[in-house]
Amino acid sequence: MTIDERVRELGLVLPEPFRSPTGTPYPFSWVRVRGNRAYISGHLPLEPNGTLAEPRGKIDETVSIEQGAAAARVVGLAMLGSLQRELGELERITAWLRVLGMVNVAPGTTQVAAVVNGFSALILEVFGKERGAHSRSAVGMAELPFGVAVEIEAEVEIE
Amino acid sequence: MTIDERVRELGLVLPEPFRSPTGTPYPFSWVRVRGNRAYISGHLPLEPNGTLAEPRGKIDETVSIEQGAAAARVVGLAMLGSLQRELGELERITAWLRVLGMVNVAPGTTQVAAVVNGFSALILEVFGKERGAHSRSAVGMAELPFGVAVEIEAEVEIE
Amino acid sequence: MTIDERVRELGLVLPEPFRSPTGTPYPFSWVRVRGNRAYISGHLPLEPNGTLAEPRGKIDETVSIEQGAAAARVVGLAMLGSLQRELGELERITAWLRVLGMVNVAPGTTQVAAVVNGFSALILEVFGKERGAHSRSAVGMAELPFGVAVEIEAEVEIE
Repeated sequence: MTIDERVRELGLVLPEPFRSPTGTPYPFSWVRVRGNRAYISGHLPLEPNGTLAEPRGKIDETVSIEQGAAAARVVGLAMLGSLQRELGELERITAWLRVLGMVNVAPGTTQVAAVVNGFSALILEVFGKERGAHSRSAVGMAELPFGVAVEIEAEVEIE
Repeated sequence: MTIDERVRELGLVLPEPFRSPTGTPYPFSWVRVRGNRAYISGHLPLEPNGTLAEPRGKIDETVSIEQGAAAARVVGLAMLGSLQRELGELERITAWLRVLGMVNVAPGTTQVAAVVNGFSALILEVFGKERGAHSRSAVGMAELPFGVAVEIEAEVEIE
Repeated sequence: MTIDERVRELGLVLPEPFRSPTGTPYPFSWVRVRGNRAYISGHLPLEPNGTLAEPRGKIDETVSIEQGAAAARVVGLAMLGSLQRELGELERITAWLRVLGMVNVAPGTTQVAAVVNGFSALILEVFGKERGAHSRSAVGMAELPFGVAVEIEAEVEIE
Protein backbone atom coordinates (compact mmCIF):
# COMPACT_ATOMS: atom_id res chain seq x y z
CA MET A 1 0.00 0.00 0.00
CA THR A 2 1.35 3.42 -0.90
CA ILE A 3 1.36 6.31 1.56
CA ASP A 4 -1.37 8.00 -0.48
CA GLU A 5 -3.53 4.88 -0.24
CA ARG A 6 -2.85 4.73 3.49
CA VAL A 7 -4.00 8.36 3.89
CA ARG A 8 -7.25 7.45 2.14
CA GLU A 9 -7.66 4.26 4.16
CA LEU A 10 -7.27 6.22 7.41
CA GLY A 11 -9.95 8.63 6.16
CA LEU A 12 -7.66 11.63 6.62
CA VAL A 13 -8.81 14.90 5.10
CA LEU A 14 -5.94 17.06 3.85
CA PRO A 15 -6.85 20.77 3.99
CA GLU A 16 -6.88 23.03 0.95
CA PRO A 17 -4.15 25.70 0.69
CA PHE A 18 -4.06 28.29 3.48
CA ARG A 19 -6.52 31.15 3.03
CA SER A 20 -5.13 34.04 5.00
CA PRO A 21 -7.71 36.11 6.91
CA THR A 22 -5.67 39.24 6.09
CA GLY A 23 -4.24 40.77 2.94
CA THR A 24 -0.62 40.11 4.00
CA PRO A 25 1.21 38.52 1.06
CA TYR A 26 3.13 35.24 1.50
CA PRO A 27 6.16 35.58 -0.77
CA PHE A 28 7.55 32.10 -0.05
CA SER A 29 6.92 28.46 -0.93
CA TRP A 30 4.96 26.20 1.40
CA VAL A 31 7.26 23.42 0.21
CA ARG A 32 10.64 24.07 -1.42
CA VAL A 33 11.90 21.06 -3.36
CA ARG A 34 15.52 20.76 -4.41
CA GLY A 35 17.36 17.54 -5.22
CA ASN A 36 16.32 14.85 -2.75
CA ARG A 37 15.08 17.27 -0.12
CA ALA A 38 11.78 19.02 0.53
CA TYR A 39 11.98 21.94 2.96
CA ILE A 40 8.59 22.57 4.53
CA SER A 41 7.57 26.04 5.72
CA GLY A 42 6.05 26.63 9.12
CA HIS A 43 2.45 25.39 8.81
CA LEU A 44 -0.55 26.44 10.89
CA PRO A 45 -3.65 24.47 12.01
CA LEU A 46 -6.19 24.66 9.16
CA GLU A 47 -9.79 23.65 8.55
CA PRO A 48 -10.40 21.42 5.49
CA ASN A 49 -11.28 24.54 3.47
CA GLY A 50 -7.95 26.20 4.30
CA THR A 51 -9.17 28.73 6.86
CA LEU A 52 -7.54 28.90 10.29
CA ALA A 53 -8.77 26.24 12.72
CA GLU A 54 -10.09 27.13 16.15
CA PRO A 55 -9.46 27.39 19.05
CA ARG A 56 -6.64 29.92 18.75
CA GLY A 57 -4.58 31.32 21.60
CA LYS A 58 -1.97 30.23 24.09
CA ILE A 59 -1.64 26.82 25.72
CA ASP A 60 -2.96 26.98 29.31
CA GLU A 61 -4.85 30.18 28.54
CA THR A 62 -7.54 29.63 25.90
CA VAL A 63 -6.24 26.29 24.58
CA SER A 64 -5.77 23.13 26.67
CA ILE A 65 -2.86 20.75 26.14
CA GLU A 66 -5.28 18.23 24.59
CA GLN A 67 -6.62 20.88 22.21
CA GLY A 68 -3.03 21.87 21.42
CA ALA A 69 -2.11 18.29 20.57
CA ALA A 70 -5.19 18.09 18.32
CA ALA A 71 -4.08 21.36 16.65
CA ALA A 72 -0.59 19.92 16.10
CA ARG A 73 -2.18 16.93 14.36
CA VAL A 74 -4.14 19.31 12.13
CA VAL A 75 -0.88 21.15 11.33
CA GLY A 76 0.41 17.78 10.15
CA LEU A 77 -2.63 17.30 7.90
CA ALA A 78 -2.10 20.77 6.40
CA MET A 79 1.54 19.89 5.78
CA LEU A 80 0.60 16.61 4.07
CA GLY A 81 -1.80 18.61 1.89
CA SER A 82 1.01 20.98 0.84
CA LEU A 83 3.36 18.05 0.21
CA GLN A 84 0.80 16.22 -1.90
CA ARG A 85 0.19 19.32 -4.04
CA GLU A 86 3.92 19.96 -4.46
CA LEU A 87 5.17 16.37 -4.91
CA GLY A 88 2.14 14.88 -6.68
CA GLU A 89 2.34 11.81 -4.44
CA LEU A 90 3.22 11.50 -0.75
CA GLU A 91 4.73 8.13 -1.70
CA ARG A 92 7.76 10.10 -2.96
CA ILE A 93 8.69 10.88 0.67
CA THR A 94 11.33 8.33 1.66
CA ALA A 95 12.17 9.63 5.14
CA TRP A 96 11.18 12.32 7.61
CA LEU A 97 14.27 14.08 8.93
CA ARG A 98 13.71 17.12 11.11
CA VAL A 99 10.72 18.69 12.88
CA LEU A 100 10.63 22.03 14.71
CA GLY A 101 7.50 22.31 16.86
CA MET A 102 6.81 25.86 18.03
CA VAL A 103 4.11 26.19 20.66
CA ASN A 104 2.31 29.39 21.68
CA VAL A 105 2.61 29.37 25.46
CA ALA A 106 1.26 31.28 28.41
CA PRO A 107 3.89 32.21 31.02
CA GLY A 108 4.91 29.10 32.94
CA THR A 109 3.65 26.57 30.37
CA THR A 110 6.36 24.00 29.88
CA GLN A 111 4.41 21.01 28.52
CA VAL A 112 5.26 21.71 24.91
CA ALA A 113 6.31 18.13 24.13
CA ALA A 114 2.78 16.84 24.85
CA VAL A 115 1.43 19.35 22.31
CA VAL A 116 3.87 18.52 19.51
CA ASN A 117 3.22 14.80 20.11
CA GLY A 118 -0.03 15.27 18.17
CA PHE A 119 2.05 15.97 15.09
CA SER A 120 4.60 13.19 15.63
CA ALA A 121 1.84 10.62 16.20
CA LEU A 122 0.20 11.51 12.86
CA ILE A 123 3.47 11.21 10.94
CA LEU A 124 4.23 7.82 12.50
CA GLU A 125 0.64 6.65 11.89
CA VAL A 126 0.86 7.50 8.18
CA PHE A 127 4.52 6.73 7.39
CA GLY A 128 5.30 3.98 9.90
CA LYS A 129 8.11 3.93 12.41
CA GLU A 130 11.04 3.61 9.97
CA ARG A 131 10.08 6.10 7.29
CA GLY A 132 8.26 8.39 9.73
CA ALA A 133 11.08 8.58 12.32
CA HIS A 134 12.28 12.14 12.83
CA SER A 135 14.44 14.33 15.00
CA ARG A 136 12.44 16.98 16.83
CA SER A 137 12.62 20.09 18.96
CA ALA A 138 9.62 21.40 20.89
CA VAL A 139 9.81 24.92 22.27
CA GLY A 140 7.61 27.66 23.69
CA MET A 141 7.17 30.82 21.62
CA ALA A 142 6.18 34.28 22.78
CA GLU A 143 3.72 34.73 19.88
CA LEU A 144 2.72 32.99 16.65
CA PRO A 145 1.05 34.29 13.46
CA PHE A 146 -2.68 34.99 13.91
CA GLY A 147 -2.37 33.80 17.49
CA VAL A 148 -2.47 30.12 16.49
CA ALA A 149 -1.59 27.60 19.20
CA VAL A 150 1.16 25.81 17.27
CA GLU A 151 3.32 26.22 14.14
CA ILE A 152 5.53 23.43 12.82
CA GLU A 153 8.24 23.33 10.16
CA ALA A 154 10.00 20.20 8.84
CA GLU A 155 12.38 18.68 6.33
CA VAL A 156 11.95 15.39 4.49
CA GLU A 157 13.95 13.25 2.09
CA ILE A 158 12.29 12.54 -1.25
CA GLU A 159 13.09 10.34 -4.23
CA MET B 1 23.77 39.28 -15.62
CA THR B 2 25.26 37.57 -12.55
CA ILE B 3 23.76 37.96 -9.09
CA ASP B 4 26.76 40.08 -8.08
CA GLU B 5 26.15 42.41 -11.05
CA ARG B 6 22.49 42.56 -10.11
CA VAL B 7 23.37 43.58 -6.54
CA ARG B 8 25.49 46.42 -7.93
CA GLU B 9 22.80 47.42 -10.43
CA LEU B 10 20.24 47.65 -7.64
CA GLY B 11 22.68 49.85 -5.71
CA LEU B 12 22.56 47.57 -2.67
CA VAL B 13 25.15 48.18 0.03
CA LEU B 14 26.26 44.99 1.78
CA PRO B 15 27.37 45.69 5.37
CA GLU B 16 30.84 44.93 6.68
CA PRO B 17 31.21 42.08 9.20
CA PHE B 18 29.30 42.48 12.46
CA ARG B 19 31.07 44.62 15.05
CA SER B 20 29.69 43.57 18.41
CA PRO B 21 29.09 46.37 20.91
CA THR B 22 30.26 44.03 23.70
CA GLY B 23 33.28 41.84 24.28
CA THR B 24 31.29 38.60 23.98
CA PRO B 25 33.18 36.24 21.65
CA TYR B 26 31.42 34.65 18.66
CA PRO B 27 32.94 31.17 18.38
CA PHE B 28 30.99 30.17 15.26
CA SER B 29 30.97 30.79 11.51
CA TRP B 30 28.60 33.33 9.98
CA VAL B 31 28.42 30.99 6.99
CA ARG B 32 29.35 27.30 7.19
CA VAL B 33 30.06 25.81 3.77
CA ARG B 34 30.13 22.06 3.23
CA GLY B 35 29.58 20.27 -0.07
CA ASN B 36 26.77 21.97 -1.95
CA ARG B 37 25.26 23.64 1.09
CA ALA B 38 25.88 26.89 2.92
CA TYR B 39 24.37 27.08 6.41
CA ILE B 40 23.85 30.69 7.42
CA SER B 41 23.94 31.77 11.07
CA GLY B 42 21.27 33.98 12.57
CA HIS B 43 22.03 37.47 11.26
CA LEU B 44 21.07 40.79 12.83
CA PRO B 45 20.19 44.15 11.21
CA LEU B 46 23.47 46.00 10.55
CA GLU B 47 24.57 49.42 9.37
CA PRO B 48 26.94 49.45 6.38
CA ASN B 49 29.91 49.70 8.80
CA GLY B 50 28.82 46.54 10.64
CA THR B 51 27.41 48.17 13.77
CA LEU B 52 23.89 47.33 14.93
CA ALA B 53 21.18 49.21 13.04
CA GLU B 54 18.52 51.20 14.86
CA PRO B 55 15.75 51.20 15.94
CA ARG B 56 16.07 48.28 18.30
CA GLY B 57 13.33 46.82 20.47
CA LYS B 58 10.12 44.88 20.16
CA ILE B 59 7.59 45.09 17.35
CA ASP B 60 4.57 47.15 18.49
CA GLU B 61 6.60 48.67 21.34
CA THR B 62 9.53 50.73 20.03
CA VAL B 63 9.55 49.36 16.47
CA SER B 64 6.61 49.52 14.04
CA ILE B 65 5.77 46.70 11.64
CA GLU B 66 7.08 48.85 8.76
CA GLN B 67 10.33 49.48 10.61
CA GLY B 68 10.52 45.78 11.39
CA ALA B 69 10.13 44.88 7.71
CA ALA B 70 12.87 47.38 6.85
CA ALA B 71 15.08 45.77 9.54
CA ALA B 72 14.40 42.32 8.04
CA ARG B 73 15.55 43.65 4.66
CA VAL B 74 18.74 44.93 6.30
CA VAL B 75 19.28 41.49 7.86
CA GLY B 76 19.14 40.17 4.31
CA LEU B 77 21.81 42.64 3.17
CA ALA B 78 24.04 41.61 6.09
CA MET B 79 23.54 37.98 5.11
CA LEU B 80 24.44 38.70 1.48
CA GLY B 81 27.59 40.45 2.75
CA SER B 82 28.59 37.36 4.76
CA LEU B 83 27.82 35.09 1.81
CA GLN B 84 29.89 37.22 -0.58
CA ARG B 85 32.86 37.16 1.79
CA GLU B 86 32.59 33.39 2.31
CA LEU B 87 31.73 32.29 -1.24
CA GLY B 88 33.64 34.92 -3.21
CA GLU B 89 30.67 35.37 -5.52
CA LEU B 90 26.93 35.35 -4.76
CA GLU B 91 26.55 33.84 -8.22
CA ARG B 92 27.58 30.51 -6.68
CA ILE B 93 24.21 30.37 -4.89
CA THR B 94 21.99 28.16 -7.04
CA ALA B 95 18.91 28.05 -4.80
CA TRP B 96 17.56 29.40 -1.53
CA LEU B 97 16.12 26.59 0.56
CA ARG B 98 15.05 27.44 4.08
CA VAL B 99 14.51 30.67 6.06
CA LEU B 100 13.73 30.98 9.78
CA GLY B 101 12.52 34.48 10.63
CA MET B 102 12.58 35.22 14.36
CA VAL B 103 10.82 38.41 15.37
CA ASN B 104 11.18 40.21 18.72
CA VAL B 105 7.57 40.77 19.77
CA ALA B 106 5.65 42.63 22.42
CA PRO B 107 2.86 40.59 24.08
CA GLY B 108 -0.03 40.19 21.64
CA THR B 109 1.96 40.99 18.48
CA THR B 110 1.08 38.38 15.90
CA GLN B 111 1.96 40.14 12.62
CA VAL B 112 5.34 38.48 12.30
CA ALA B 113 4.84 37.48 8.66
CA ALA B 114 4.63 41.14 7.59
CA VAL B 115 8.00 41.76 9.26
CA VAL B 116 9.83 38.81 7.69
CA ASN B 117 8.38 39.77 4.30
CA GLY B 118 11.06 42.50 4.16
CA PHE B 119 13.66 39.75 3.98
CA SER B 120 11.81 37.53 1.50
CA ALA B 121 11.21 40.48 -0.84
CA LEU B 122 14.93 41.30 -0.95
CA ILE B 123 15.91 37.71 -1.73
CA LEU B 124 13.32 37.49 -4.53
CA GLU B 125 14.39 40.91 -5.89
CA VAL B 126 18.03 39.84 -6.09
CA PHE B 127 17.75 36.15 -7.02
CA GLY B 128 14.45 36.08 -8.94
CA LYS B 129 11.46 33.90 -8.25
CA GLU B 130 12.97 30.54 -9.21
CA ARG B 131 16.37 30.75 -7.60
CA GLY B 132 15.15 32.93 -4.72
CA ALA B 133 12.15 30.75 -3.80
CA HIS B 134 12.40 29.49 -0.22
CA SER B 135 10.47 27.76 2.52
CA ARG B 136 9.95 29.94 5.55
CA SER B 137 8.78 30.08 9.14
CA ALA B 138 8.02 33.35 10.91
CA VAL B 139 7.66 33.29 14.67
CA GLY B 140 7.60 35.61 17.68
CA MET B 141 10.52 35.41 20.12
CA ALA B 142 10.61 36.44 23.77
CA GLU B 143 14.00 38.15 23.34
CA LEU B 144 16.77 38.51 20.76
CA PRO B 145 20.48 39.37 21.08
CA PHE B 146 21.10 43.07 21.84
CA GLY B 147 17.35 43.62 21.71
CA VAL B 148 17.29 43.69 17.91
CA ALA B 149 13.87 43.57 16.25
CA VAL B 150 14.56 40.57 14.03
CA GLU B 151 17.09 37.75 13.56
CA ILE B 152 17.06 35.45 10.54
CA GLU B 153 18.89 32.22 9.72
CA ALA B 154 18.86 30.40 6.38
CA GLU B 155 20.24 27.61 4.22
CA VAL B 156 21.16 27.80 0.55
CA GLU B 157 22.34 25.44 -2.16
CA ILE B 158 25.64 26.34 -3.80
CA GLU B 159 27.62 25.05 -6.74
CA MET C 1 43.83 10.53 17.92
CA THR C 2 40.17 9.86 17.17
CA ILE C 3 37.38 12.06 18.50
CA ASP C 4 36.33 9.26 20.84
CA GLU C 5 39.88 9.06 22.23
CA ARG C 6 39.88 12.83 22.62
CA VAL C 7 36.62 12.71 24.60
CA ARG C 8 38.22 10.19 26.94
CA GLU C 9 41.44 12.19 27.19
CA LEU C 10 39.50 15.29 28.18
CA GLY C 11 37.75 13.23 30.84
CA LEU C 12 34.31 14.13 29.51
CA VAL C 13 31.37 12.18 30.89
CA LEU C 14 28.60 11.65 28.33
CA PRO C 15 25.20 11.33 30.04
CA GLU C 16 22.98 8.29 29.71
CA PRO C 17 19.74 8.64 27.69
CA PHE C 18 17.24 11.19 28.97
CA ARG C 19 15.01 9.95 31.77
CA SER C 20 11.90 12.07 31.68
CA PRO C 21 10.48 13.07 35.08
CA THR C 22 6.96 12.68 33.64
CA GLY C 23 5.12 9.98 31.75
CA THR C 24 4.95 12.02 28.51
CA PRO C 25 6.04 9.79 25.62
CA TYR C 26 8.80 10.93 23.22
CA PRO C 27 7.76 9.56 19.84
CA PHE C 28 10.83 10.83 17.97
CA SER C 29 14.52 10.00 17.51
CA TRP C 30 17.19 11.83 19.48
CA VAL C 31 19.37 11.48 16.40
CA ARG C 32 17.95 10.80 12.93
CA VAL C 33 20.57 9.46 10.53
CA ARG C 34 20.02 9.46 6.80
CA GLY C 35 22.72 9.37 4.14
CA ASN C 36 25.60 11.59 5.20
CA ARG C 37 23.56 13.63 7.65
CA ALA C 38 22.62 13.27 11.29
CA TYR C 39 19.75 15.50 12.44
CA ILE C 40 19.94 16.03 16.18
CA SER C 41 16.80 16.70 18.23
CA GLY C 42 16.62 19.52 20.74
CA HIS C 43 18.64 18.29 23.74
CA LEU C 44 18.31 19.39 27.38
CA PRO C 45 20.94 19.71 30.14
CA LEU C 46 21.32 16.27 31.75
CA GLU C 47 23.12 14.75 34.71
CA PRO C 48 25.38 11.76 33.92
CA ASN C 49 22.52 9.41 34.87
CA GLY C 50 20.17 11.04 32.36
CA THR C 51 18.01 13.03 34.77
CA LEU C 52 17.50 16.75 34.26
CA ALA C 53 20.41 18.87 35.51
CA GLU C 54 19.88 21.75 37.90
CA PRO C 55 19.50 24.70 38.18
CA ARG C 56 16.41 25.05 36.03
CA GLY C 57 14.61 28.28 35.21
CA LYS C 58 15.09 31.44 33.22
CA ILE C 59 18.35 33.28 32.63
CA ASP C 60 18.53 36.35 34.90
CA GLU C 61 15.83 34.94 37.15
CA THR C 62 16.95 31.68 38.81
CA VAL C 63 19.89 30.95 36.49
CA SER C 64 22.88 33.26 35.93
CA ILE C 65 24.53 33.69 32.55
CA GLU C 66 27.52 31.68 33.81
CA GLN C 67 25.22 28.87 34.97
CA GLY C 68 23.43 29.07 31.61
CA ALA C 69 26.71 28.68 29.74
CA ALA C 70 27.57 25.68 31.93
CA ALA C 71 24.12 24.22 31.15
CA ALA C 72 24.72 24.73 27.42
CA ARG C 73 27.98 22.79 27.75
CA VAL C 74 26.08 19.99 29.48
CA VAL C 75 23.55 20.00 26.63
CA GLY C 76 26.53 19.41 24.34
CA LEU C 77 27.67 16.43 26.43
CA ALA C 78 24.15 14.97 26.29
CA MET C 79 24.17 15.43 22.52
CA LEU C 80 27.55 13.70 22.19
CA GLY C 81 26.13 10.84 24.26
CA SER C 82 23.17 10.47 21.88
CA LEU C 83 25.49 10.69 18.86
CA GLN C 84 27.84 8.03 20.25
CA ARG C 85 24.93 5.66 20.90
CA GLU C 86 23.46 6.24 17.43
CA LEU C 87 26.66 6.35 15.35
CA GLY C 88 28.78 3.91 17.34
CA GLU C 89 31.74 6.28 17.10
CA LEU C 90 31.88 10.08 17.25
CA GLU C 91 34.80 9.77 14.82
CA ARG C 92 32.19 9.28 12.08
CA ILE C 93 31.24 12.97 12.41
CA THR C 94 33.15 14.79 9.68
CA ALA C 95 31.73 18.29 10.16
CA TRP C 96 29.36 20.25 12.36
CA LEU C 97 26.96 22.27 10.24
CA ARG C 98 24.15 24.04 12.04
CA VAL C 99 23.32 24.83 15.67
CA LEU C 100 20.12 26.39 17.03
CA GLY C 101 20.56 27.57 20.60
CA MET C 102 17.27 28.30 22.37
CA VAL C 103 17.61 30.06 25.69
CA ASN C 104 14.91 30.35 28.37
CA VAL C 105 14.91 34.07 29.15
CA ALA C 106 13.38 36.43 31.67
CA PRO C 107 11.90 39.61 30.13
CA GLY C 108 14.71 41.90 29.05
CA THR C 109 17.43 39.23 28.95
CA THR C 110 19.33 39.65 25.69
CA GLN C 111 22.67 37.97 26.49
CA VAL C 112 21.73 34.70 24.83
CA ALA C 113 24.99 34.45 22.85
CA ALA C 114 27.04 34.23 26.05
CA VAL C 115 24.90 31.28 27.15
CA VAL C 116 25.11 29.31 23.90
CA ASN C 117 28.88 29.91 23.86
CA GLY C 118 29.16 27.14 26.45
CA PHE C 119 27.96 24.71 23.79
CA SER C 120 30.09 26.08 20.95
CA ALA C 121 33.23 26.00 23.12
CA LEU C 122 32.72 22.30 23.91
CA ILE C 123 32.23 21.37 20.26
CA LEU C 124 35.36 23.27 19.23
CA GLU C 125 37.33 21.75 22.13
CA VAL C 126 36.40 18.22 21.09
CA PHE C 127 36.32 18.50 17.28
CA GLY C 128 38.84 21.29 16.65
CA LYS C 129 38.27 24.46 14.71
CA GLU C 130 37.88 22.95 11.22
CA ARG C 131 35.65 19.98 11.92
CA GLY C 132 33.87 21.69 14.81
CA ALA C 133 33.08 24.94 12.96
CA HIS C 134 29.34 25.55 12.76
CA SER C 135 26.74 28.13 11.85
CA ARG C 136 24.64 29.19 14.80
CA SER C 137 21.59 31.12 15.92
CA ALA C 138 21.02 32.06 19.56
CA VAL C 139 17.57 33.25 20.55
CA GLY C 140 15.40 33.86 23.61
CA MET C 141 12.42 31.58 24.13
CA ALA C 142 9.27 32.22 26.16
CA GLU C 143 9.37 28.74 27.72
CA LEU C 144 11.24 25.46 27.36
CA PRO C 145 10.33 21.87 28.32
CA PHE C 146 10.51 21.23 32.10
CA GLY C 147 11.64 24.82 32.54
CA VAL C 148 15.22 24.03 31.53
CA ALA C 149 17.51 27.01 30.91
CA VAL C 150 18.59 26.02 27.40
CA GLU C 151 17.68 23.59 24.61
CA ILE C 152 19.88 23.07 21.55
CA GLU C 153 19.34 21.28 18.24
CA ALA C 154 21.96 20.69 15.55
CA GLU C 155 22.87 19.02 12.29
CA VAL C 156 26.15 17.30 11.44
CA GLU C 157 27.75 15.68 8.44
CA ILE C 158 28.80 12.04 8.87
CA GLU C 159 30.72 9.54 6.82
